[in-house]
Amino acid sequence: MRTDDIALAHRLADAAGAAIRPLFRAAFTHEAKADASPVTEADRAAEAAMRSILSTERPDDGIIGEEYGAERVDASRQWVLDPIDGTVSFMAGRPIFGTLIALLQDGWPVLGIIDQPIGGERWVGALGKPTLFNGQPVRTRACRKLADATLATTGPQYFADHDAEHFMALAGQTAHKRLIFGGDCYNYGLLASGHIDLVVEAGLKLHDYAALVPIVEGAGGTMCDWNGDPLNADSAGHVLALGDPARLEDVIEGLACHH
Amino acid sequence: MRTDDIALAHRLADAAGAAIRPLFRAAFTHEAKADASPVTEADRAAEAAMRSILSTERPDDGIIGEEYGAERVDASRQWVLDPIDGTVSFMAGRPIFGTLIALLQDGWPVLGIIDQPIGGERWVGALGKPTLFNGQPVRTRACRKLADATLATTGPQYFADHDAEHFMALAGQTAHKRLIFGGDCYNYGLLASGHIDLVVEAGLKLHDYAALVPIVEGAGGTMCDWNGDPLNADSAGHVLALGDPARLEDVIEGLACHH
Repeated sequence: MRTDDIALAHRLADAAGAAIRPLFRAAFTHEAKADASPVTEADRAAEAAMRSILSTERPDDGIIGEEYGAERVDASRQWVLDPIDGTVSFMAGRPIFGTLIALLQDGWPVLGIIDQPIGGERWVGALGKPTLFNGQPVRTRACRKLADATLATTGPQYFADHDAEHFMALAGQTAHKRLIFGGDCYNYGLLASGHIDLVVEAGLKLHDYAALVPIVEGAGGTMCDWNGDPLNADSAGHVLALGDPARLEDVIEGLACHH
Repeated sequence: MRTDDIALAHRLADAAGAAIRPLFRAAFTHEAKADASPVTEADRAAEAAMRSILSTERPDDGIIGEEYGAERVDASRQWVLDPIDGTVSFMAGRPIFGTLIALLQDGWPVLGIIDQPIGGERWVGALGKPTLFNGQPVRTRACRKLADATLATTGPQYFADHDAEHFMALAGQTAHKRLIFGGDCYNYGLLASGHIDLVVEAGLKLHDYAALVPIVEGAGGTMCDWNGDPLNADSAGHVLALGDPARLEDVIEGLACHH
């Protein structure tokens, strides 16, 4: 990592937030074309703003963007951009969506930001450094047994095939009264800050999870796939985040997921 | 309603927020006793603060509180207090829980507040007046067909018996990509503001829904039970909120709920 990569990532998040804020809760009708909706407009404006900065400041780095695709795919350094993670949350007017920015070095995320531009909340994780929330170090919390765990996932509709059964098997072993739905990337920030113990999702793409890894791991947690393996293309989007890595075996057993 | 009831309700919400804010995202361990957790402490402190004001300002009115029960149950005016609606959201650190305050006149809610004390967001509804969000009038939005509708519910775990089947039957007819989970009372505020079309829940108690009725209806929407009847003890907590009342028949058919 370059010494000024973190400062640059902050500038990217600032630029994305400036593009997004005016369109949050903007009036729109169901009759609007999909490509003219505020979320589409905000998504594109935020990614364009970030790409513009990168093209000036890091002309040799690759970019993988959710809206505008990939550039310089052979570069060893790749910026992964998801201007609005949680588009449904954005459209519904909830201030818990986020802009995700990651830097991959040789394919591995070494820097990540979750930025919530409405509430002014930003998590920053960088390899070898403590995760910061609005500039202050945060830590995940201990979870001595699965039965105490607060488990979060965005929604049951994102589970394909038998994923929902595995998820429900696990949820049956966590704290029933603390199961929480919705949230997208925001859940991983709250896990890094010690308010949630476990996030279990499926169907996530690289731009959905790359930024989360340095944030969760820099706060003392762990991220992996549903088999406990490092996240990569073989994970098929099955993502686990644990605040207390000591519970990993319990979680994998809880998912009863031996495929 | 007395002319100064709305001003008083604002004072109640201010007092509750002041009690809640210091405890949001407060550190706590799983080992803490349930009655010493920040959410319990915040719930009790907020309700006590509201009751203290009511005992001075409205000594003859009844109070129905989620934490401290009922007083003067025979009074024609009853204040219904839910200091923290969305306790799981509060515990997980999401700024989308709310304080609910309602005034019942002869059993019917004539005044309601949803207050989100972290983001500083407040919806106020009063019979015969337009609903206000942070002082500005808001309206629900038109929804010409169910297939366009953004549908929200807090979580599938709150549906008992066959409720989930009915809900899924309806969800199959709304906009698949806009189904959103989590949110508690906040969803009804967003519906009043025209960002969500439909909220469908079960298991709600009087203190969970009383405040929502004047807010949703004063913004042009409608609230009723899953059969389209007014909400009361017979509704068994089955609550519908629609931004566009013209879709009521479609929603009830969509729920395929002819019991």
